[in-house]
Amino acid sequence: MSLENISANKSFGGWHKQYSHDSKALNCSMRFAIYLPPQASESNKVPVLYWLSGLTCTDENFMQKAGAQRIANELGIAIVAPDTSPRGEDVADDEGYDLGKGAGFYVNATQAPWNRHYRMYDYVVNELPELIELTFPVTTKRSISGHSMGGHGALTIAMLNPDRYQSMSAFSPIANPINCPWGVKAFSAYLGEDKSTWLKHDASVLMSKATQFVPALIDQGQGDDFLVEQLKPEALSNAAEQSGYPLTLNMQQGYDHSYYFISSFIESHLHFHAKHLNM
Amino acid sequence: MSLENISANKSFGGWHKQYSHDSKALNCSMRFAIYLPPQASESNKVPVLYWLSGLTCTDENFMQKAGAQRIANELGIAIVAPDTSPRGEDVADDEGYDLGKGAGFYVNATQAPWNRHYRMYDYVVNELPELIELTFPVTTKRSISGHSMGGHGALTIAMLNPDRYQSMSAFSPIANPINCPWGVKAFSAYLGEDKSTWLKHDASVLMSKATQFVPALIDQGQGDDFLVEQLKPEALSNAAEQSGYPLTLNMQQGYDHSYYFISSFIESHLHFHAKHLNM
Repeated sequence: MSLENISANKSFGGWHKQYSHDSKALNCSMRFAIYLPPQASESNKVPVLYWLSGLTCTDENFMQKAGAQRIANELGIAIVAPDTSPRGEDVADDEGYDLGKGAGFYVNATQAPWNRHYRMYDYVVNELPELIELTFPVTTKRSISGHSMGGHGALTIAMLNPDRYQSMSAFSPIANPINCPWGVKAFSAYLGEDKSTWLKHDASVLMSKATQFVPALIDQGQGDDFLVEQLKPEALSNAAEQSGYPLTLNMQQGYDHSYYFISSFIESHLHFHAKHLNM
Repeated sequence: MSLENISANKSFGGWHKQYSHDSKALNCSMRFAIYLPPQASESNKVPVLYWLSGLTCTDENFMQKAGAQRIANELGIAIVAPDTSPRGEDVADDEGYDLGKGAGFYVNATQAPWNRHYRMYDYVVNELPELIELTFPVTTKRSISGHSMGGHGALTIAMLNPDRYQSMSAFSPIANPINCPWGVKAFSAYLGEDKSTWLKHDASVLMSKATQFVPALIDQGQGDDFLVEQLKPEALSNAAEQSGYPLTLNMQQGYDHSYYFISSFIESHLHFHAKHLNM
C-alpha cells in the first residue's frame, strides 16, 4: 500500500501526522491523521483509540479541537482519525451536508451511485486498522469513539465486532438512525428502501439485542439543538435496559453539539478507554 | 455601546461567548470572544487574560484550538480574544495575507488608506478592556498573551503600558518586526517610511530600553518554519540582557508555528499569568 506522509506537528511531546493512501475498500485516495504519544516505539507498542467524526468533518476537526493529545500523552494511547467519507472528483455526492462527501455514515453502501466508493464500514473495521498496525508501533488492542454521525459509527461498529474492540464511547451519537431524519435520509440512499437492511446499523436495535457486551460510555449535552429530533439518546438507554448492556449515559446540562462540549469531557472518555485497554 | 451576543457554548463548566459591537476606535463593527469560567460572578469577579492572535486569524482560532478553557476553569481566569483587524466591506485591504484584514499588527495606522480603520492598538489597550470591565464580572487586573503577530502585539502593548498589565507572554512572537519582512511590510504601510515611528512598536527595541518591567514568558518552537526569517527570538534575549528584563524564553525542540505547539504549552502560560495576577 502506498502511504504518503503529508504533515507532521509535534504535540505534547508526541507527533500528530497526516497520511494519504490508496484505499481498496473505498476505491479512492484517503487521508487520515494519527497521534503517536512519545512513549510509542517498536519496543513499547501502544494501543489505539479510533475516533470517528461527525457530518461535514474530516480527520482534522478532532485533532485540532478536542484537546485529546494531552491525555493521550499521559496515558500512552495512540489516536487515529479517519476522514468521514470517500473523497475525490469521481466520488458521488449530494447537495446536502448530510449525504455524500463528509457523510459516509460508516456503512457499506449497496445502492448506486453510492456503492462504487461508499464503504466506510469496511474501511474503518478492516482496512485502516490493518494499515495502522502494519505501519506504526501500535498493538492490536483497539477502542473506538466518535461524535454524532461518528458516535453512531463507533457504537455500531463496536457492537458488530465485539471481539475487535475493548471499549466504545460516543459524544452526542445518532442513537437511533432508523427513526431520525439524518439516518432515514442516509440509509435510504446508501442501503435502499428495504428497512430490514438498516437494522444492523442502528445502535439502539443492536444494543437491545446484544448478548456479547463492549463496555460503553456516552456523553450527551442537554443543550444540544439536535437532541430531540436527531439524536434520541433515550432509545439507547431503553435498549441497554432491555439487554442489560453495560452502558453509562451522562446527560450534561447546558452543553451543545460542538467541540466545546467534546473537549470538556474527552478526558473522562480517554480514561475510560485506558482502563479497558488494560493500561 | 451596542453589544450583541451572537453565540454561546458551555465549555468546562463556564461559557464561551461571541459578541459584536460598534467600535469607535476602529470605526466598524467588531467581534470578540470571551471565556468566563464558572466561578465568575458579580460577587466574585475574576481577572482577564487578553489573547491576541496571529496573521489570518479571528477571535475563533485560540478559543477552538488552544485548550485554554480547561486551565482557565481551574484557575478562575477569564479570557478575551479580539479579532486581528477591523472588518467590513468598506475597510481597506490588501491581496497579501500579511497586510490589511486579518493583519492589523496591533498599531494605530497613520497612513492612508489604513488610518480610517486600522487602530488596533487603541482598541486593544483602551476600548475593549473598558467594554469588558463594564459588561462582565471581571476585575481590572489584566494580563496579555498572543501568538506570532499577536505575540508581537502582546509584548509591545504590555511594555508600552506597564501599569495596565500584571504579566505578558507570547508564543512564537515576531520579536523584532523592524528587521523582518512581515514587520517591514506592515509598518511601511501602516506607519509610513519614517522608521523612527516604528521603534515604539518593536518588542526588542522596547525591551532593550525598558526601565519598568512586566514579567515576561515566551515559548518558541525550534522547528518553526518562520523562526529565522521572521521571528528572531535572539533579538529579544539580547534586549533582555541589555536592560536586565525579567524574561524567560523557552526554545522548544521540534515544535512548529501551529496551535499544536500552543496547546502543548498553554497550561504553563496560564499558570504564569495566574501567579502574577495574585491568584
